Amino acid sequence: MARKVNLNADMGEGFGDYDIGNDTEMLKIIKSANVACGFHGGDWNVMDRVCKQSKERGVSVGAHPGFNDLWGFGRRKIQMATDDVERMVCYQIGALQGMAAANGMKVTHVKTHGALGNICAVELDWAQAIGRAIKAVDPSLIFLAPTGCKMIEVAQDMGLTFASEVFADRTYDDDGNLTPRSQPNAMVHDPDEAAERIIHMIQNQEIVSTSGKHVPAVVHSICVHGDGPTAVAVATKVRAGIEAAGIDIVPLPEMELG
Amino acid sequence: MARKVNLNADMGEGFGDYDIGNDTEMLKIIKSANVACGFHGGDWNVMDRVCKQSKERGVSVGAHPGFNDLWGFGRRKIQMATDDVERMVCYQIGALQGMAAANGMKVTHVKTHGALGNICAVELDWAQAIGRAIKAVDPSLIFLAPTGCKMIEVAQDMGLTFASEVFADRTYDDDGNLTPRSQPNAMVHDPDEAAERIIHMIQNQEIVSTSGKHVPAVVHSICVHGDGPTAVAVATKVRAGIEAAGIDIVPLPEMELG
Amino acid sequence: MARKVNLNADMGEGFGDYDIGNDTEMLKIIKSANVACGFHGGDWNVMDRVCKQSKERGVSVGAHPGFNDLWGFGRRKIQMATDDVERMVCYQIGALQGMAAANGMKVTHVKTHGALGNICAVELDWAQAIGRAIKAVDPSLIFLAPTGCKMIEVAQDMGLTFASEVFADRTYDDDGNLTPRSQPNAMVHDPDEAAERIIHMIQNQEIVSTSGKHVPAVVHSICVHGDGPTAVAVATKVRAGIEAAGIDIVPLPEMELG
Amino acid sequence: MARKVNLNADMGEGFGDYDIGNDTEMLKIIKSANVACGFHGGDWNVMDRVCKQSKERGVSVGAHPGFNDLWGFGRRKIQMATDDVERMVCYQIGALQGMAAANGMKVTHVKTHGALGNICAVELDWAQAIGRAIKAVDPSLIFLAPTGCKMIEVAQDMGLTFASEVFADRTYDDDGNLTPRSQPNAMVHDPDEAAERIIHMIQNQEIVSTSGKHVPAVVHSICVHGDGPTAVAVATKVRAGIEAAGIDIVPLPEMELG
Repeated sequence: MARKVNLNADMGEGFGDYDIGNDTEMLKIIKSANVACGFHGGDWNVMDRVCKQSKERGVSVGAHPGFNDLWGFGRRKIQMATDDVERMVCYQIGALQGMAAANGMKVTHVKTHGALGNICAVELDWAQAIGRAIKAVDPSLIFLAPTGCKMIEVAQDMGLTFASEVFADRTYDDDGNLTPRSQPNAMVHDPDEAAERIIHMIQNQEIVSTSGKHVPAVVHSICVHGDGPTAVAVATKVRAGIEAAGIDIVPLPEMELG
Repeated sequence: MARKVNLNADMGEGFGDYDIGNDTEMLKIIKSANVACGFHGGDWNVMDRVCKQSKERGVSVGAHPGFNDLWGFGRRKIQMATDDVERMVCYQIGALQGMAAANGMKVTHVKTHGALGNICAVELDWAQAIGRAIKAVDPSLIFLAPTGCKMIEVAQDMGLTFASEVFADRTYDDDGNLTPRSQPNAMVHDPDEAAERIIHMIQNQEIVSTSGKHVPAVVHSICVHGDGPTAVAVATKVRAGIEAAGIDIVPLPEMELG
Repeated sequence: MARKVNLNADMGEGFGDYDIGNDTEMLKIIKSANVACGFHGGDWNVMDRVCKQSKERGVSVGAHPGFNDLWGFGRRKIQMATDDVERMVCYQIGALQGMAAANGMKVTHVKTHGALGNICAVELDWAQAIGRAIKAVDPSLIFLAPTGCKMIEVAQDMGLTFASEVFADRTYDDDGNLTPRSQPNAMVHDPDEAAERIIHMIQNQEIVSTSGKHVPAVVHSICVHGDGPTAVAVATKVRAGIEAAGIDIVPLPEMELG
Repeated sequence: MARKVNLNADMGEGFGDYDIGNDTEMLKIIKSANVACGFHGGDWNVMDRVCKQSKERGVSVGAHPGFNDLWGFGRRKIQMATDDVERMVCYQIGALQGMAAANGMKVTHVKTHGALGNICAVELDWAQAIGRAIKAVDPSLIFLAPTGCKMIEVAQDMGLTFASEVFADRTYDDDGNLTPRSQPNAMVHDPDEAAERIIHMIQNQEIVSTSGKHVPAVVHSICVHGDGPTAVAVATKVRAGIEAAGIDIVPLPEMELG
């Protein structure tokens, strides 16, 4: 039975005078930060601040690359050649490495953002582009992605270290895929219920679908939301629930990964 | 008498569908490329291409950070806190490191672009911000800057390796400063004359001012322009002249530097 | 038999220091300019210059709205809510109206750019968003779009004035649709052949498909390319051919339109 | 004694997913909105929403042009040719005119933002560039600017209608200039005191300096802040105070202006 798990959230998505999320509070709760790299959000100042606070809190940092689409916050699907995607991700990883190095830290994982992540979860050639970017820039980077998606498949094929995540506030179908947000039962709104579900997933390395089916699932990390009015409250409860179950919450590099 | 010199030019300043300069031809002539990092120009594709071609040609690559001002091509002076400048430069160095790593290369120098460079040449606190960025991200980076400017002073104070450059097509005054472009004799238009002047500067480590004064000057590198209709022709003549004088043209890391 | 036709091209797609196309030469040839509005290309200076030169040459100006995607030059398909598209187009029309007013001119047409145009040609709800933007900002604006596409359908439904265009250098299939560029016979490379085909289209208001089928087509305007090394030469020949056939080339507002 | 005054605030400074300020609440209090035009902040959606809400509330809208510097929120001074400034402002006015037209409204004033405003307040040639932009795009636009600054001077010279404003929460020196923010007594923190001071300024058309000197000042409009945690509370009190003094708060076009 798993005695360790990682807790991750998207951080550093402000830009210039624009603020978003609750980075300072969230960094007291999570153990790995997915840091926006200046494309869908984030800038050098925000990235620097997240690195500094992460270092103080023992939080590991990873690149959170997205489409070059600040207006759309990286949530709009954009048609691109996958070679362009690969290079765009290399750039973003490098940019965060620069900010991390300036703080005496190392970037230890990569997790795709928004629409880029959604495409890479299902399109093999897009997932491969991310895999190639990781391999090219630093093959020791952990590829963090939703359990069972194309990116995990690619990481395995390419011999990259990967971490599988589940979402604290989402439900899953019988195939282990997320219930689409358009469906009424897509979200878990009650933090206690969310914590309970997560503990089951960690301890049993399986998802229980909305129909009650038990689907085997590798669960290295739990993703919690960093923005929204209830983000801090939910993350706090989820963390407390996991710890109460005797499970340690650790940074990604301290997990035993695939 | 100096038997080695470096030849550098700004490269990779296109953006998306927009092309500028003659990178492919220039990379056959120069030995160090100052690569735009996506702020005043440049993008992941252009940076990748410059890295690839530089590697093939034995050209060393350096970050060419500028203001976050694509519209102004980094040529507009922008009021900023120097701490913001420092972090903005860390980001840009890191971004190029990512693209270089993806090509099995290392970034070996930093040279400021345009208005950022102009300010840092004369403002100590701005020059220090660049020095701190270099020290923070990778203290082995060579700080390439105009001979005698504040950036060279800062590099020496901070114990950073530096390289002093002169401009192939510009004249200097009795204090060793560039003749302002507003003056009629600011530019050297004849490539043969430019080559001759440069050879004198390299061999004697001194500048001859427009009034004929000999001003001691450390000359590690010659900067040639990468854009404009005559850039390739001028750079070719300058290179041929230097080589005809028995001086080797080498990448920056092969120079004996301060 | 039609004795008048319009000749249009995309203009003003530079940005800051980046130049593209041959605006000055093209504006001597065409009679309506589709002016980029600062989203996929173009800026206030370029827009102003195109307006000034258009006025001198008796060329009418229209807004050429595209996706907010300078890097992709508006050629990447981007997923957006159609209400957002509508407002994004209102903004761009207004911006050009500002630049035109500053030059004592009026914006008289709208033509979508790149990927936005490609989507609007086939997706009714996207085409309707453009129609609504036109209606909202200035219902007297001429909706210029490829003959037979969804935008023409929408213009008719909404009671907007429209102009149907054909491409000087493209072939058509039996349904009157453009032959995909992936096919070998998609392009007409010979300017003389292009001119001949266009004259037939104007005089007979029909397209002759690659298989020889005659497809009725309303042809108010001919689109020529403004960039590429042969753009000026091709446009010059096309114009000369049309004039030699006794057909007047006039600005869009001087056409009798639908 | 003045019986009417205008109350204005900067509105619509969000961008994409980034929100800033309290537009909805502020629009219930003010009578003229300075609408960001997508350069330092704002986008087509935000502009559209502010127009819609302004129309509902009987609030007049004006363009609030700033530097093309989203990251710096238009607060960084940027070196530019004044002709470029003129055209940049034409573009922004036009863009808002587009959004306003789409809502059946007219843009009735222009007020410069942030660093652009600060420069134009003291540099005659910059102030003239704004004046020329207004004259070129729509000479009936009201030029709203701080009382006694270069922009008011330019408006008078150019024969433009102008409105002079004072700031609700700032103090003034004996020359009628704002006390620099670096000084301890620069701000008026107490809304009641602010209201009292404003009523005096309106009724007597004079500023009382920090040293007690009475400086004649034309006061057509009061500027209140739209962002910050206390913005709505302060504006509410200021408005209530003015109304309690029997002074009507009206949109700019309803003022008798210079």
